[in-house]
Amino acid sequence: MMHFSPQHPDERIRPLLREKIDNLTKPKGSLGRLEDLALQIGMIQQTLSPELKKPCNILFAADHGIVEEGVSLSPKEITWQQLSNFLHGGAGINFLCRQHGFRLLLADSGVDYDLPYEQGIRNLSVGKGTRNFLKEAAMSPEECQLCLERGASLVDEVFESGCNVVSFGEMGIGNTSASSVWMHLFTRIPLEQCVGAGSGLNAAGISHKLDVLKRAVARYNGNGEPLDIMAEYGGFEMVMAAGGMLRAAERNMIILVDGFIMTNCILAASRLHPEVLDYAVFGHQGDESGHKLVLDWLQARPLLNLGLRLGEGSGAVCAYPILESAVRMLNEMDNFAHASITKYF
Amino acid sequence: MMHFSPQHPDERIRPLLREKIDNLTKPKGSLGRLEDLALQIGMIQQTLSPELKKPCNILFAADHGIVEEGVSLSPKEITWQQLSNFLHGGAGINFLCRQHGFRLLLADSGVDYDLPYEQGIRNLSVGKGTRNFLKEAAMSPEECQLCLERGASLVDEVFESGCNVVSFGEMGIGNTSASSVWMHLFTRIPLEQCVGAGSGLNAAGISHKLDVLKRAVARYNGNGEPLDIMAEYGGFEMVMAAGGMLRAAERNMIILVDGFIMTNCILAASRLHPEVLDYAVFGHQGDESGHKLVLDWLQARPLLNLGLRLGEGSGAVCAYPILESAVRMLNEMDNFAHASITKYF
Repeated sequence: MMHFSPQHPDERIRPLLREKIDNLTKPKGSLGRLEDLALQIGMIQQTLSPELKKPCNILFAADHGIVEEGVSLSPKEITWQQLSNFLHGGAGINFLCRQHGFRLLLADSGVDYDLPYEQGIRNLSVGKGTRNFLKEAAMSPEECQLCLERGASLVDEVFESGCNVVSFGEMGIGNTSASSVWMHLFTRIPLEQCVGAGSGLNAAGISHKLDVLKRAVARYNGNGEPLDIMAEYGGFEMVMAAGGMLRAAERNMIILVDGFIMTNCILAASRLHPEVLDYAVFGHQGDESGHKLVLDWLQARPLLNLGLRLGEGSGAVCAYPILESAVRMLNEMDNFAHASITKYF
Repeated sequence: MMHFSPQHPDERIRPLLREKIDNLTKPKGSLGRLEDLALQIGMIQQTLSPELKKPCNILFAADHGIVEEGVSLSPKEITWQQLSNFLHGGAGINFLCRQHGFRLLLADSGVDYDLPYEQGIRNLSVGKGTRNFLKEAAMSPEECQLCLERGASLVDEVFESGCNVVSFGEMGIGNTSASSVWMHLFTRIPLEQCVGAGSGLNAAGISHKLDVLKRAVARYNGNGEPLDIMAEYGGFEMVMAAGGMLRAAERNMIILVDGFIMTNCILAASRLHPEVLDYAVFGHQGDESGHKLVLDWLQARPLLNLGLRLGEGSGAVCAYPILESAVRMLNEMDNFAHASITKYF
């Protein structure tokens, strides 16, 4: 069994960070969320002068058996086609990674296609897609463990290369369905409110998707433990991301959380180890209808709300300059005493 | 009299931009606000491949006679002290400009202090602060014209240096008071809803500020024309910004709008020439209570909502990477035909 033990950051540095932030040359609190972020990042790194190093976006891709039930507008082959597109640099996540200096790591968690690993896609494949969870468990407990391990190992690798801020993204036709079920079972928010349009379903499509997912939830006869729910409905890419997040928290890395899918992955991870949330920065509130609800449930406030619904890590990477601003604020702003300004608050 | 004649961008390129955006390798609409921004920037620049060049933040500073009435928590000397702090690089706007590659232009529009112009502050001063608008007009019509001209000239200068995207910021103790009155008179939203805490007033302070502003509005006996209202209550820095915005629109530059003060400046500019709004990108919705209302009135949707209330152009500059993302999307993303991906929407 995979063992994780993320810890809460040591609280002793909090008042020192607070004091430093409050003495910068600005009205107290006037840099809003930048101040909260600076505090969080300082806590994670246990320093008054944090640094962001070698940011990396890990993109896990996999296929989902549930797609057989017509729950997605997009055909399954989009998963491997888009993964290849990422390799060639022409997708949404590529320009965002170039813009913000992110390394982009592409991982096959379980795509139903023979991918060109020699071109740089990591082969972490646990199988050619999950099984159809309307009929049976999406994956076995062993496959679920393998996903956690492989996700954690990839994070170890980027950590060892000097990275201290990692975002997670995904590509997997059908994964809003898997995410909606996780969300429902972990939060008990009614399934209707957890289900949305995915990559663009109309009302009839959403209604069919909801019907399929209701039946899938109704047949569940497991033990209700987080890992059991994750294996029963999860995608390989989703469990891998959850494993990666838990390892990132253990390594005191900043975790940048993307959209609906990744929010449900950190939700799952937090059911195993709530400490993981101390390391999470939520990048973006997407348009998928359940996303706001799960964010609220987690008491998470994403930095951006730009109507993105692309996945791939795009919302997380887009938010990165705001983290950089928070760090620069701590490191580059003058304090009142030094700047000889009347402290006016 | 200063003459401006900004034009609406030529509509003919709109369908071509729309088509280009819709054929990029992503579900249609899935890049949300980035798509809207790409369209707007393409329209402004009249090209399918826009570029952002030499961004500049122009920060106008001035003092306000109304501060005599105790409407601000901060003493007046903060205006010149902060302007000096900007010169030394230690303020909020400095690290943001460094981070995002902005030139920072500091302009004395009318600060009540002998500033070190030789160190790089532009001397555009129209006087040592405005008059107290509770008792008389803040400035004469001639001073108002001078502000418009000087703001426009500074924008001409940055345009001629190769800049095509300009943000406007301000420093001026008392300028939320002036802005609230402009907002009330231009939108007819009740004054109570236009007045807020400024740099940190408590409830009693806000109540006193409102009382002062009510009396100031009650004594108005002008002709109700935009320029008359601007001169009666405006700050020198605010009228200069409005002049700069109008010139930027004439030059087909992107105008990045900052917080409450700058939103009221473009509101005023738009009462003179509504076309200016076609060039405006609203960076940030601040915490000042009237800001959301004036944005809604303008049907403007700011890109960020990070609880900033610093002014200086900080919210506008913070939003700049999102403009860069929109431009990269247009220039760097592959289209479906080229990437050999099933067009799935």
